[in-house]
Amino acid sequence: MTTRSDCEFRDQADPLAPLRDQFALPEATIYLDGNSLGARPKATSERLQHLLEQEWGHDLIQSWNTAGWIHLPHRIGNKIARLVGARDNDLVVADSTSVNLYKVLTAAARIQRARSPQRRVIVSERSNFPTDLYIAEGLCEELGWTLRLLEAEEIEANLGPEVAVLMLTQVNYRTGRMFDMAAMTATAHGAGVLTVWDLAHSAGAVPVDLTGSDADFAIGCGYKYLNGGPGAPAFVWVHPRHAGEFSQPLSGWMGHIAPFEFSPHYRPAEGVARYLCGTPPILAMAALECGVDTVLAAEPYGGMAALRAKSIELTELFAQLVEQRCAGHGLAVVSPGDASQRGSQVCLTRTEGGYAIVQALIARGVIGDFRAGDERTPDILRFGFTPLYTRYVDVWDAVEHLREVMVSDEWQRPEFNRRRAVT
Amino acid sequence: MTTRSDCEFRDQADPLAPLRDQFALPEATIYLDGNSLGARPKATSERLQHLLEQEWGHDLIQSWNTAGWIHLPHRIGNKIARLVGARDNDLVVADSTSVNLYKVLTAAARIQRARSPQRRVIVSERSNFPTDLYIAEGLCEELGWTLRLLEAEEIEANLGPEVAVLMLTQVNYRTGRMFDMAAMTATAHGAGVLTVWDLAHSAGAVPVDLTGSDADFAIGCGYKYLNGGPGAPAFVWVHPRHAGEFSQPLSGWMGHIAPFEFSPHYRPAEGVARYLCGTPPILAMAALECGVDTVLAAEPYGGMAALRAKSIELTELFAQLVEQRCAGHGLAVVSPGDASQRGSQVCLTRTEGGYAIVQALIARGVIGDFRAGDERTPDILRFGFTPLYTRYVDVWDAVEHLREVMVSDEWQRPEFNRRRAVT
Repeated sequence: MTTRSDCEFRDQADPLAPLRDQFALPEATIYLDGNSLGARPKATSERLQHLLEQEWGHDLIQSWNTAGWIHLPHRIGNKIARLVGARDNDLVVADSTSVNLYKVLTAAARIQRARSPQRRVIVSERSNFPTDLYIAEGLCEELGWTLRLLEAEEIEANLGPEVAVLMLTQVNYRTGRMFDMAAMTATAHGAGVLTVWDLAHSAGAVPVDLTGSDADFAIGCGYKYLNGGPGAPAFVWVHPRHAGEFSQPLSGWMGHIAPFEFSPHYRPAEGVARYLCGTPPILAMAALECGVDTVLAAEPYGGMAALRAKSIELTELFAQLVEQRCAGHGLAVVSPGDASQRGSQVCLTRTEGGYAIVQALIARGVIGDFRAGDERTPDILRFGFTPLYTRYVDVWDAVEHLREVMVSDEWQRPEFNRRRAVT
Repeated sequence: MTTRSDCEFRDQADPLAPLRDQFALPEATIYLDGNSLGARPKATSERLQHLLEQEWGHDLIQSWNTAGWIHLPHRIGNKIARLVGARDNDLVVADSTSVNLYKVLTAAARIQRARSPQRRVIVSERSNFPTDLYIAEGLCEELGWTLRLLEAEEIEANLGPEVAVLMLTQVNYRTGRMFDMAAMTATAHGAGVLTVWDLAHSAGAVPVDLTGSDADFAIGCGYKYLNGGPGAPAFVWVHPRHAGEFSQPLSGWMGHIAPFEFSPHYRPAEGVARYLCGTPPILAMAALECGVDTVLAAEPYGGMAALRAKSIELTELFAQLVEQRCAGHGLAVVSPGDASQRGSQVCLTRTEGGYAIVQALIARGVIGDFRAGDERTPDILRFGFTPLYTRYVDVWDAVEHLREVMVSDEWQRPEFNRRRAVT
């Protein structure tokens, strides 16, 4: 049986342990929701203060040049590129995940419309994150196309000659189940289908090899494992083979080949820069850069591979401790047991009481979240493990709190059963 | 002749003078570029520090509820509504100006496609801000429509039965010339044409009466006269008569009627809330709110009407002083002399040297900007006057610097003639 001392020992022996000091984490909180909003890097405060006082406050409009604001989408993009296996200058930061998804889905649809006009179906996973489905649904309506939603295991057999685009989130937000990006892409390409990958729960959490996997388009989120702050700008990547061909509908001035010529006609910039649209929110961009830097800080320790190794240890420890210490309380692990098929989260389910159990944990300072099920999917108690700042002892303590909540029936208290408007 | 003492006296007598103290302005700078990037409110630093340390750093994901992050698009939207004559809950903050323009143009196009499918032309002003033209150009390409660009004075006579949408920026970014929104909208409606207004150089600068003017759609910018910070989020407004009818293509989860139900199918929220798309950048939103508050702080002093009165005095003083003190140096005022047709800026032109003159002024701490002309339009030396923080004596001093630059031929120095990549 694992003990708390074992966990303390693993923390002492953990070469990544110093990386936790990059973050301003509240005392007495065990934060297992970095997959929803990453913790705040200490560096962000100082960076924003400088931005506010010197760059905006003192240098004002000139900072677009002197502080390099105009280059931020590319500079941060090239940093994120190192985390997701993209080449330099193939990835930019812009807008939100939803807006970027609209751009790349439309670009993919336009390519197929020119190549194979009979292909008019977008395939996705039924339990993909809703905003992905909404954006695809809206685009299909406009194009007269069909959005076909399948279970994960049905997808490969259903990429017929009518399918134009396969749109998947690599790591499922509910279950943590992870697709093999290279294998799914190869299957899709074999069937003449283009792939669009959402890396919301991948970037900064698991090693991704965008170029190597031969994917066509990808987007991702800045505020989860990249620690960019609430609602941080998102990113967009396009495989270089589409660079001369692709176009996107949000043809704003930042994607123009010469935005400061103020020409009345749009000429897209070379490469992925044409995926920029309006003026980027510089405060949010600067905070995102600080967040990305916390992940790059792992490079001397082995980078994403080392983070992934620790992430697997954390998630396996959690699942194992729940099974050992919370047995008999109706909790089941929903996430795949095989680490190669699991992102950096572990999800539990229980026939009833999931919401209240999460609330009782939050009251104890253990922050996870709850995702309600429906007729097809179970309720989910979701716990994310960010290897940059989560300790083994945090995992032990979180499970101990969970055990106490279950043993004492604490979760049945009325205050934990009142739903809030937003979770 | 006006003297510097006259200007000092006007500042002493100015009831709006205390509002300047809301801003952190650099010493020895006369900032006449608030129409490009508004100055930094002092309150923004403290607000962002609290957001970083308490809301994000300490309360983490819970701040979506406890700090009301989820309500920011509406809360700030309702504040901006008070500045542009919109009703409560008809305006939200979201995305960038370019992205919002894409939403409303598409919504307007969809309405016309259903009502009057023969209308397939978008009309705009040739010298409209380029990103507006680029977005319209992209949409027209997708729809198989035509974008028709006209001179301002040609527009009214060219709203024929083939025209679907009239898209105008109320105050021209180059010349400062202002359209009469109510009159142009009435003409357009009489011709069966819907109107989309860009308020980038209007919101916070001139009184706007969106509801009263009967416009159909409007968008606007947060980082100019609203002082929201570089690349601040933008806003979008829809006339209530379209509330049940309009739809927009960027159907992200924040525009869903129940985003936290995580339903796989999109159902748009009631009213303008369906114009939200992805997760908003909270740091940038918080800074925008501080900026909007600096304009609302004028309400006890007479609000937008009082700001407008001072803005007219500042712009008239500038034009008058340039004519008096810089006569014989080839500078001409391009902006309309009639204040009712002019926004809060004054633009000059000169056959040659415009760029270098602006650079020489910047070197002296007088910040305006330069916009190059083309075969149809002259070079522009652009000076924006934000009545919240611009003093009469600033106007005098700016013109005195301009006079010295011209008299001494300082602008002919080589260092002022080297173009930078971005201006």
